[in-house]
Amino acid sequence: MAGDGSDQRALQYEQTLMYGRYTQELGVYAKEEAARLRESGQRRSVSDRSRTLDLLEYDKGRCAKCRRSGYPYVLEPPAQDFISVCTVRCQKFLISRVGEDWIFLILLGLLMALVSWVVDFCIAICLQAQKWMYGGLDSNVFLQYLAWVTYPVVLITFSAGFTQILAPQAVGSGIPEMKTILRGVVLKEYLTFKTFVAKVIGLTCALGSGMPLGKEGPFVHIASLCAALLSKFMSLFGGIYENESRNIEMLAAACAVGVGCCFAAPIGGVLFSIEVTSTFFAVRNYWRGFFAATFSAFIFRVLAVWNRDEETITALFKTRFRLDFPFDLQELPAFAVIGIASGFGGALFVYLNRLIVQFIRKQKAINRFLMKKRLLYPALVTLLISTLTFPPGFGQFMAGKLTQKESLVTLLDNRTWAKQGIAEDFDYIGHSQAWKHPQLNVFVTLVLFIVMKFWMSALATTIPVPCGAFMPVFVIGAAFGRLVGESMAAWFPDGIHTDGTIYPIVPGGYAVVGAAALSGAVTHTVSTAVIVFELTGQISHILPVMIAVILANAVAQSLQPSLYDSIIRIKKLPYLPELGWGHHEKYNIRVEDIMVRDVRYITLNCCYRDLHNVLLTGHLKTLALVESAESMILLGSIERAQLQSLLSQQLGRSKRLEYIRERAAAEKKHLSVVSIPGSEDGSQRASQEVRFQISTEESSFSPTRPAPQKPLKPALKRPSVVERPTEIPTSPNDNSGIALKNLFCASPDTEGLEDDGDVEDDMTIREISEWEEKQLDEQVNFNNCKIDPAPFQLVERTSLHKTHTIFSLLGLDHAYVTSIGRLIGVVSLKELRKAIEGSVTVKGVKVRPPLASFRDSGTSSSENEATELHKLWDRHKSMSLPREHTPSESDEKSQ
Amino acid sequence: MAGDGSDQRALQYEQTLMYGRYTQELGVYAKEEAARLRESGQRRSVSDRSRTLDLLEYDKGRCAKCRRSGYPYVLEPPAQDFISVCTVRCQKFLISRVGEDWIFLILLGLLMALVSWVVDFCIAICLQAQKWMYGGLDSNVFLQYLAWVTYPVVLITFSAGFTQILAPQAVGSGIPEMKTILRGVVLKEYLTFKTFVAKVIGLTCALGSGMPLGKEGPFVHIASLCAALLSKFMSLFGGIYENESRNIEMLAAACAVGVGCCFAAPIGGVLFSIEVTSTFFAVRNYWRGFFAATFSAFIFRVLAVWNRDEETITALFKTRFRLDFPFDLQELPAFAVIGIASGFGGALFVYLNRLIVQFIRKQKAINRFLMKKRLLYPALVTLLISTLTFPPGFGQFMAGKLTQKESLVTLLDNRTWAKQGIAEDFDYIGHSQAWKHPQLNVFVTLVLFIVMKFWMSALATTIPVPCGAFMPVFVIGAAFGRLVGESMAAWFPDGIHTDGTIYPIVPGGYAVVGAAALSGAVTHTVSTAVIVFELTGQISHILPVMIAVILANAVAQSLQPSLYDSIIRIKKLPYLPELGWGHHEKYNIRVEDIMVRDVRYITLNCCYRDLHNVLLTGHLKTLALVESAESMILLGSIERAQLQSLLSQQLGRSKRLEYIRERAAAEKKHLSVVSIPGSEDGSQRASQEVRFQISTEESSFSPTRPAPQKPLKPALKRPSVVERPTEIPTSPNDNSGIALKNLFCASPDTEGLEDDGDVEDDMTIREISEWEEKQLDEQVNFNNCKIDPAPFQLVERTSLHKTHTIFSLLGLDHAYVTSIGRLIGVVSLKELRKAIEGSVTVKGVKVRPPLASFRDSGTSSSENEATELHKLWDRHKSMSLPREHTPSESDEKSQ
Repeated sequence: MAGDGSDQRALQYEQTLMYGRYTQELGVYAKEEAARLRESGQRRSVSDRSRTLDLLEYDKGRCAKCRRSGYPYVLEPPAQDFISVCTVRCQKFLISRVGEDWIFLILLGLLMALVSWVVDFCIAICLQAQKWMYGGLDSNVFLQYLAWVTYPVVLITFSAGFTQILAPQAVGSGIPEMKTILRGVVLKEYLTFKTFVAKVIGLTCALGSGMPLGKEGPFVHIASLCAALLSKFMSLFGGIYENESRNIEMLAAACAVGVGCCFAAPIGGVLFSIEVTSTFFAVRNYWRGFFAATFSAFIFRVLAVWNRDEETITALFKTRFRLDFPFDLQELPAFAVIGIASGFGGALFVYLNRLIVQFIRKQKAINRFLMKKRLLYPALVTLLISTLTFPPGFGQFMAGKLTQKESLVTLLDNRTWAKQGIAEDFDYIGHSQAWKHPQLNVFVTLVLFIVMKFWMSALATTIPVPCGAFMPVFVIGAAFGRLVGESMAAWFPDGIHTDGTIYPIVPGGYAVVGAAALSGAVTHTVSTAVIVFELTGQISHILPVMIAVILANAVAQSLQPSLYDSIIRIKKLPYLPELGWGHHEKYNIRVEDIMVRDVRYITLNCCYRDLHNVLLTGHLKTLALVESAESMILLGSIERAQLQSLLSQQLGRSKRLEYIRERAAAEKKHLSVVSIPGSEDGSQRASQEVRFQISTEESSFSPTRPAPQKPLKPALKRPSVVERPTEIPTSPNDNSGIALKNLFCASPDTEGLEDDGDVEDDMTIREISEWEEKQLDEQVNFNNCKIDPAPFQLVERTSLHKTHTIFSLLGLDHAYVTSIGRLIGVVSLKELRKAIEGSVTVKGVKVRPPLASFRDSGTSSSENEATELHKLWDRHKSMSLPREHTPSESDEKSQ
Repeated sequence: MAGDGSDQRALQYEQTLMYGRYTQELGVYAKEEAARLRESGQRRSVSDRSRTLDLLEYDKGRCAKCRRSGYPYVLEPPAQDFISVCTVRCQKFLISRVGEDWIFLILLGLLMALVSWVVDFCIAICLQAQKWMYGGLDSNVFLQYLAWVTYPVVLITFSAGFTQILAPQAVGSGIPEMKTILRGVVLKEYLTFKTFVAKVIGLTCALGSGMPLGKEGPFVHIASLCAALLSKFMSLFGGIYENESRNIEMLAAACAVGVGCCFAAPIGGVLFSIEVTSTFFAVRNYWRGFFAATFSAFIFRVLAVWNRDEETITALFKTRFRLDFPFDLQELPAFAVIGIASGFGGALFVYLNRLIVQFIRKQKAINRFLMKKRLLYPALVTLLISTLTFPPGFGQFMAGKLTQKESLVTLLDNRTWAKQGIAEDFDYIGHSQAWKHPQLNVFVTLVLFIVMKFWMSALATTIPVPCGAFMPVFVIGAAFGRLVGESMAAWFPDGIHTDGTIYPIVPGGYAVVGAAALSGAVTHTVSTAVIVFELTGQISHILPVMIAVILANAVAQSLQPSLYDSIIRIKKLPYLPELGWGHHEKYNIRVEDIMVRDVRYITLNCCYRDLHNVLLTGHLKTLALVESAESMILLGSIERAQLQSLLSQQLGRSKRLEYIRERAAAEKKHLSVVSIPGSEDGSQRASQEVRFQISTEESSFSPTRPAPQKPLKPALKRPSVVERPTEIPTSPNDNSGIALKNLFCASPDTEGLEDDGDVEDDMTIREISEWEEKQLDEQVNFNNCKIDPAPFQLVERTSLHKTHTIFSLLGLDHAYVTSIGRLIGVVSLKELRKAIEGSVTVKGVKVRPPLASFRDSGTSSSENEATELHKLWDRHKSMSLPREHTPSESDEKSQ
């Protein structure tokens, strides 16, 4: 019984979910839905269901302000009365609370903190196991090597294989995908439970191997998965969870939680997630991110305290620099140098990463081989990297035995490693010992570490496992900063400050600056500065860090896209490039310079032939609907799929059968008709009605916006990029049209054969084609067609800057350019992208000249408008007073 | 000569500025412009100008991509050639660089750092002078009192008077106004040089008086003023500075700079400014804020180092809490209590502040008196406050002799004041001594301090001088935190931690938490947490601070609006309330629930009488233009002012004179006409043409958006709220119409008397009214009228949530609701505000029921659309095939 109830609840959930869905696979949906409704109707009448559940159903209905009036006439046996009332009260309370955002955010934070902690715990165990194996075999170097190498290879291979099998979407960072999802694109299967499992387990194994991989990016994805799943789960209780806008808001908060609980850095997490995933940020959602991230970071650290890892809540990589005199003013040039060098380094990292990916892709032979043995590439890369870090081997020159975390802790140490002036050497205690080599200078070790880790990280992040690049880059940056810091310390052993006290230079401070700068350069963010403060627990170096990060960003942004944008391009995710740093020539490009003037449109009084032609020629996703070819007044837009289905209805088999039936009826007058076409037709009508009613439901202000269309619902590609010619013909069972076949060259009539059987399809090919010609000449009836009544409109003079803003704000795919109601052009993402990239990358040869910034203020344009208005007006006159007009001169003279 | 050149440049600047201007006072502008052009033309032909300037002009032309082709045909004397070429090159380089954002941001940062430092310096001197006077007169308490009291009274009175005389706009914080400006509203005189001077000097005096006033809010305003003025100044060199979007971006950056250089808190500054001024934030502008704020904070602190105030760059209120064990996990409840209490306190503060303002306003008698003696109120308040803080008087119980800065330093001290367990008392050194009273417990002192300062700050911020409330609130919060901290320290003298080492409680940490929480509660921001870290230079208390701030925000936001929103409401600035914390019922309201269905519209073929009627009945700012009353197809919108001017042209004196002239000409056929009506008419036409051509220039995508219309240009009120009936009639010199007089009941024809003098206005009143009746029956000619060709459109099903987003994203004022091109309603800011507030504040009695969340999925709506489409289609049919239709049944049957 309970299963039955939850089943029904799930059904209702899916139903409500659908209202938010745009127009995807609605034919299929309508069919399924009809079948399910029928089924559930039967079940309802048959099965005996608990009254509590019914009442719950009722309450839910009220709570969600839905018009389902429930079943108020259920009769209660008095015995069960009290219990059920109690249950209902409790559930009611639960339900009313459960809908509130903060509950959701706390649950999300809690969940993610637990996940983060468990993952960290498992990774630590994995790494310890490797160390233990390596340490236990110290009698035999070969066995040691074998253990050192086999362990990561096995783990990475398992991770790659597991991810590949369970959910290939879990591969990689996840931040590029989240950026795309938050931009409004629905990615297939990206937010499912399978992906969650694959990502968590894959990530744990990948990081447990000790490869230079990061946890941050995947955690953003995991948090989003968590949010999506939690939202799905909680929609079982409340009525608010199927709202699209809310889900987007929650996903944005989840991204913040992901970073926040990964580094115990709530503020940095929020800012970083905003910078890497959003284009425009609603300040009203700000608190969500802060709330969830803080709670998550708090729990994450509390878990560490409870586990006795820490005495109290402190930073993850706590530093202990002196507070009074953190750095000298004269050290600032060195910090600036770190910033600029990191900028170049960051750009190089992104470039190298892309190069490796493209190289692997291009080499056909390698590729084919690797594709066959999917797990070979990860294994080979891991083998190479772990061989090089083998501590008794080359690893001894680059502190190879340290894990990533250990390296970072040592690099941020506040003691100086190279004190050349002072006799007694710094005693390398603990992990810091790894940096000391009997033959080599610490500088050489550092340089080797930086160089080796640099390409290793770039290479390792191309392995198809869930992994991020933030942490490796962070460590490299810290090492680079340390190198500069140690050099400074060697150069000025007594510090720079001249008057009075000696303040020696703190190389650890340089490491902090370097880490923030390099990670900022790679990700193109400024908030790495905040992350670094939260990670180290000290903010005393704020100005050097900020200066270095800003310089690094300035350099890196002018050379390369960010790592995430680079991945977006490699993966060919739909994207809209940013307007870069002060490319002010773009303020002067206007829509009329980039719009496509040759718009495909259909008119209100067009016939099916026009429809047919338009569909045949273009490959557009939506078509503009104008009043008439003369007036060109834009009424709305219609999706291609809708038109295809209109056409297929008109030329379809059922229509033809109806025609045959009518003809037969006309012939056999006064005879009783055997078949019941009315009912059959009616049911078909009904299913169609459901189909289009539902799709209009959420067609709110900008239905051209693919954004809010159920990012939680998998199995959808980009909704407006729908071209599924194989599906349309199957929805009404009619696809034997000839003209139709031209259009959809796929799926010949396999189902069409099992038809009603009441009338025979006795028409010859010739008759059919005649009939079709006749049908094509009929006027289109748009009644059942889903028209987007207010597609987004721009005017010619809208600047590129503003257009870009609007497109990214509203997640538009295209916008029509109108002039006083008249359609004159269309701008799609493609044109916009071309215009932006044309003027950004190809500096010399612009796609279009940036054109007149102050084009002389529009005598022309004003006249233009005036004449257009004239036309409209005249047309109007001529319509209301037909056969009388001498249009264009009359009223100009009459003035 | 140079003056001449710059004059012309200024002219060009103003001209280009105008293209960005919306439609304000265009008649006036056109006149002025024409006069100026004439004048400059004369000057050009007369004056002998330097070739260099001419060439510069030429280069500027090219650089700015403007079509002014300059004077390429100037002949060069060979001697001057080389020099001029050099000059040109230099200037060219300068110009090309000057246009880049970072130059602007650096200049802005530098300027603001200097201003901030100078202001701080002057304030410090003022406060020192007061101390010195007070200290010098310690022989006589009465003289001391006089000195203690007179000094602030004089300063505040001067500040109030100076501000009042020079620029009353400089009064108050400035953040509410900047919020409104960034929302897109143009406030009158808010960004002028006069305001800048008044604000800086007024602020210095006000803060120098030692009143509990803050510097932050005014600095946001000052930075914006700086940006606006700098932008104006730099537009003399480059061509990019007149771009509206850019100016808004720069203003946003300036707000960050304001906070950043005030507290040397770049990150907190950026975040705080985003939170208090923006609704939606473009991540692409992020770097601007960071860059400028960092640079500004850097220079600000470097100035302190150079002035030998500090040894190196450190935080403004540096703390020295221990790093290893900043706080115990078990102290967290105390921090949470601080957060919640601060939330209530913050709400109380906002309420108290508003109460005082409203009380002062309501008391008619007081008010009249105060209005007469404008400076009396400030003086009285100052007298009261300074009397109470007089150190030998009541001030001894509340550390009255400490300045705000000193209080804060002592409150953040890392030593514990009340160690009851330990015998040897803490020796109150330095300023901390003030907190120790021989008779009183330190707890009493703190409580008195908090209570007194609380109402004093709330009162002081109502004084009409430039002042903010952030810093006073911050200090009160710190005191409250300290109070809790000291209590905890007294309660647990050995700390809470049980196993092993003793970690005593640090009351300074509580003070930090309290400061962040209370200021966060008053301003409704989370970023005060970041500001507090940057101010103290320590981030170790991040989790307690975040938790307290979030709790404080949660409490305060549910009780009161933020201080800035409260001021916005008091000042009645145009605002759009935020969607609050998780009011999810608003996801379910749709546009059709709130829209006004009775839209005023004009049709394309309407006559002037309709125009007249529409203008007489409604009080709307813009009117929809539809194709015809039957079709209701929305073509665009026209501003009221435009229509008024259309009507005034039609009924105006000049038109009538023309009519008389024509009549006369018809009468005296074959006679030579004395006057030259053609040329006169032509010039008028030309001026009109200029007028409307210019206005269409920038009417880009959403001209309903008042936003980008020249916030830099003063003297404009909200552009779309234009109702200046006194101006319209004066623009064409015709205002003796009778019907017209009904419309604009102001300004009888004073100018109308000095007319051309060539024809006599010999019409009688009756003739005139007959003529007017005839004129009113003519069809309107919209040719010269500025039509907004793409007003923003929504559909019925757009949710309130989305509508709010769009309105705040795009800064809309109203949007039309259409259904397949047909106008069916309008939603303005008013309706939206009502809907939001209705469901936010009046929880029980909602303005409208939240209505069906899943209204059953639209059989009705779909039918609705279908029928509308029918109508349209039928109408269309009936038009193309007139007198033949039987509209609504025919094609429904044919299916």
